[in-house]
Amino acid sequence: MSNLLEKLNWRYATKKMDASKAVEQEKVDRILEAIRLTATSSGLQPYEIIVVKNKALREAIVPHAWNQAQITDGSHLLVFAAWDNYTEERINKMFDLVNDERGFENEGWENYRQMILGAYPPRDAEVNYQHAARQAYIGLGTALIAAAEEGVDSTPMEGFDPAKVDEILGLTERGLRSVILLPLGYRAEEGDWLKDLKKVRRSTEDFITEMN
Amino acid sequence: MSNLLEKLNWRYATKKMDASKAVEQEKVDRILEAIRLTATSSGLQPYEIIVVKNKALREAIVPHAWNQAQITDGSHLLVFAAWDNYTEERINKMFDLVNDERGFENEGWENYRQMILGAYPPRDAEVNYQHAARQAYIGLGTALIAAAEEGVDSTPMEGFDPAKVDEILGLTERGLRSVILLPLGYRAEEGDWLKDLKKVRRSTEDFITEMN
Repeated sequence: MSNLLEKLNWRYATKKMDASKAVEQEKVDRILEAIRLTATSSGLQPYEIIVVKNKALREAIVPHAWNQAQITDGSHLLVFAAWDNYTEERINKMFDLVNDERGFENEGWENYRQMILGAYPPRDAEVNYQHAARQAYIGLGTALIAAAEEGVDSTPMEGFDPAKVDEILGLTERGLRSVILLPLGYRAEEGDWLKDLKKVRRSTEDFITEMN
Repeated sequence: MSNLLEKLNWRYATKKMDASKAVEQEKVDRILEAIRLTATSSGLQPYEIIVVKNKALREAIVPHAWNQAQITDGSHLLVFAAWDNYTEERINKMFDLVNDERGFENEGWENYRQMILGAYPPRDAEVNYQHAARQAYIGLGTALIAAAEEGVDSTPMEGFDPAKVDEILGLTERGLRSVILLPLGYRAEEGDWLKDLKKVRRSTEDFITEMN
């Protein structure tokens, strides 16, 4: 089995984290770097990662996230927060950054900028947010692998009240909306009902259709 | 740099694939297995992967996907197709499979089943589809890494007419809606404007906020 498949088999949505073990900061940094490097639509990176180590803030979030204790038993909480809208300013900033970093303007790229500027900002903010939120899930898929590569446990969570989390972390005024929570930590030896259970996935036959 | 970060730096949205090189089937199979193994919300795996090798089908898709030649220059086209809705049948099938594979019923798990059955099927189909589509993006994030691990190039595409692709592949009658196209192949030595350009990402400072 390849290393990647091994890591995907190793990981699971940890139900009980060991509150006595903190994840080393250099491991967290490599997980964050993997998220930063992965793909997004048109390279716009329409989301940000909020890394909450602050215990009081994490405690404030818990009651708005079905009291899931991993949020405080883990040492770091990653919050994937998507842009609430695609604005001209946000789009131009990214296209300008690309030009700056590459040191030249490319006609095809500038035409593409105009197309995106013509298509996204006029759309409903909710449509744009939904599109941005999807990109955050690419980051989540990346983070799960990056964490597993580091031997770090994680628990992806959609079950929380985004409006409350946005308020607690001050995201609304930054034009961000929380999409996914991902506590990082280490699985507890005891008290995790899922830890030793078999990972179940649909069979290949049921999940994959080949059209040859 | 870790192997994962190296692979994430190596990959890019390939603009020109070498039509003379096909991806070996065992590499495709490992990429598919990685997608199958990754996480989805509540483990429901609410999407499927259609692997289109058939050239005529891929040719039929091209005009509905901005004429992007990677679809036919690559050797395999992965279509991520999300459930059009969460139905009781689909949810029960997955919960039953988990019980079958683990060989026992768990009270907490059965309560969770009832909660999901009470929450998802009554919702609007579009809300459910959007939720399912997000899960496919976790699979996409996984696929991009899995392909890079195999030294295989890929190009994630949102720019296509889903209704047409659904029709060409017969997805509608299967209760599926196409979300993302991902051609697999090998980058061409010449003719790819992006191949040798610098990968540009927002700075860590601009992408990550630490709340300590």
